[in-house]
Amino acid sequence: MTDRTTGLPVVGMIGAGQLARMTHQAAVGLGLSLRVLADSADDGAALVTPDVEIGAATDWDALERFAKSCDVVTFDHEHVPNALVAALASSGVTVHPGAGALLYAQDKRAMRERLGALDIPIPKWSDDPEALARPFIAKAVRGGYDGKGVWVVDEGDPLPPVDYIVEERVTIVHELAVQVARTPSGATRCWPVVETVQRDGICVEVIAPAPRLSHALTAEAQALAVRIAEELGVVGVLAVELFEVPGGLFVNELAMRPHNSGHWSIEGSVTDQFEQHLRAVLDWPLGDTRPHRPVTVMANLLGGESTNLAQSLPAALAAVPSASVHLYGKAARLGRKLGHVTVLGDDVAETRELAQRAVAALRGDAE
Amino acid sequence: MTDRTTGLPVVGMIGAGQLARMTHQAAVGLGLSLRVLADSADDGAALVTPDVEIGAATDWDALERFAKSCDVVTFDHEHVPNALVAALASSGVTVHPGAGALLYAQDKRAMRERLGALDIPIPKWSDDPEALARPFIAKAVRGGYDGKGVWVVDEGDPLPPVDYIVEERVTIVHELAVQVARTPSGATRCWPVVETVQRDGICVEVIAPAPRLSHALTAEAQALAVRIAEELGVVGVLAVELFEVPGGLFVNELAMRPHNSGHWSIEGSVTDQFEQHLRAVLDWPLGDTRPHRPVTVMANLLGGESTNLAQSLPAALAAVPSASVHLYGKAARLGRKLGHVTVLGDDVAETRELAQRAVAALRGDAE
Repeated sequence: MTDRTTGLPVVGMIGAGQLARMTHQAAVGLGLSLRVLADSADDGAALVTPDVEIGAATDWDALERFAKSCDVVTFDHEHVPNALVAALASSGVTVHPGAGALLYAQDKRAMRERLGALDIPIPKWSDDPEALARPFIAKAVRGGYDGKGVWVVDEGDPLPPVDYIVEERVTIVHELAVQVARTPSGATRCWPVVETVQRDGICVEVIAPAPRLSHALTAEAQALAVRIAEELGVVGVLAVELFEVPGGLFVNELAMRPHNSGHWSIEGSVTDQFEQHLRAVLDWPLGDTRPHRPVTVMANLLGGESTNLAQSLPAALAAVPSASVHLYGKAARLGRKLGHVTVLGDDVAETRELAQRAVAALRGDAE
Repeated sequence: MTDRTTGLPVVGMIGAGQLARMTHQAAVGLGLSLRVLADSADDGAALVTPDVEIGAATDWDALERFAKSCDVVTFDHEHVPNALVAALASSGVTVHPGAGALLYAQDKRAMRERLGALDIPIPKWSDDPEALARPFIAKAVRGGYDGKGVWVVDEGDPLPPVDYIVEERVTIVHELAVQVARTPSGATRCWPVVETVQRDGICVEVIAPAPRLSHALTAEAQALAVRIAEELGVVGVLAVELFEVPGGLFVNELAMRPHNSGHWSIEGSVTDQFEQHLRAVLDWPLGDTRPHRPVTVMANLLGGESTNLAQSLPAALAAVPSASVHLYGKAARLGRKLGHVTVLGDDVAETRELAQRAVAALRGDAE
């Protein structure tokens, strides 16, 4: 199964969105070429790697056929049914993260039960909507992302029509995220804790390192991430979304794959999350995660009313020559995550301004 | 011809070696996917991009068919006959750099005649081996690279069996290189001047910026590169190899494509040479070329006696966690350029040592 020319292993990723696309870019440096299982030939990663199988991530036959052609299988998303992940492993496929860990990134109830049992700080939650005072947050147990599957429920509001849990609204000082990579051998490496800026439940900006976070909370966040990775047996990159609240930290959500909160690391860190994820699932030594510069800002590009990248890309490159632009090969649609921009610098405000200016130009906002 | 989904242009590269491979990595960020004309499906870039035509760079039919499927055509190497480059342009294809410029990267005699006419400093040279005292350097007019096509000719030595020019041996203080990108609109941007370290005529190491170069010579080298790009009408990235000699600079050779002396820029500079080459041939605004850190060192990986990358890659990653490894997808052979390693740092000696240690581990040298 190894590559015939180089003898290097074949890594397969189930799902072919932008995370797989950027993982392929990292794979090329390591002498690899990512193999992807894509829903469609138009998926972001399928457009840029030669090694594409078309098939649904919920189709056992497609999964098995794909997995048997790889040395290691990993994921671009959480949508492979957990039982099928377990069945792949039982059939002899090396799958990272495994079903036992991945469950906690797929099922918000299971995650809260497990983290609670580990005494890891999380907001108060319940299966019973009567257990919490309104307004509270309701979250779909499965499948939510980018603000979808999350509702603020006040007096008189209906409850969601899907399986959900409810969670207290906490006073958020800042939203944070921390990523850690873990190998099957148990090695771990964290990146700096980042601040994430959300708008309508969607991450629009990431500042690395988090500019207003104490050393104590930084160390606590990183220790939490390492502990969660170890207790849950995560292999690959784990992203832990956190709330900084008065007096401490709460874990909000987990993702067990490269994550939007880590895109800054492509330019900003010695080893980026995509390469590190590959190293981790291959049980190769992990790379240095130090940042190159005092500040790295990543801003997401969401489609605007009249975004036309063929017109706006040159304008954006002219507007901010220090911007590193990443486009995902998608047709522009309102609100769709089309790419991101990263800027490195010395000053938080100035670097944020440059990243925002580049994204506004890409979106085609009027001056 | 533009991409149907994004409306972005299609860039084609003739040749599919490691330069095309790394250009594809950069293209993906810009929302593109490089189209390549490969000699073989095993070529480094053909392994990692889905958009591959197989054909010889000397075959007019293959060239024309390939070029007509692209918005812009550029080059991974200098081996397309100049007349065919001119014919492509005449047939309506946008080709950068054009035949008129590319000639000076293909023909060492034409280059020396032209630079001499421009009063650009070059070593004394001649077509006549009797015109210079021996020992002198003989260089094949066409097709030399990595020390091939270059001979030291002393008393009694035979002259080369190919078309050649002869050149005086100069006292080299340091070997340098400077790259500049130029757009069809005439915009130019230089990177810092780098020092190149050669062994047996092959570049083994690049230090950016050149650590022992005066401000005056740095400015002179960059001004020379810009002037050459403008006078010769280069579009894309131009690499100018230079000799620092007692009292000044001599131009040694030109390349009109991404070049080994610029690989450091992938991690080391805000905009790397591969992305900048794409921007330039597309007539898009050029990116910032500042380095991120005080020192960037790139070391080439040449195959050793018993290089086995599948074994040595994990060992190298363990040996130097701060190394960024780039492998080209080639089978290991003695002396073959298999990849490179880049390390960023603050101190020249320490950063060089780390890069060398990583390359030695990759080569599989005994400890």
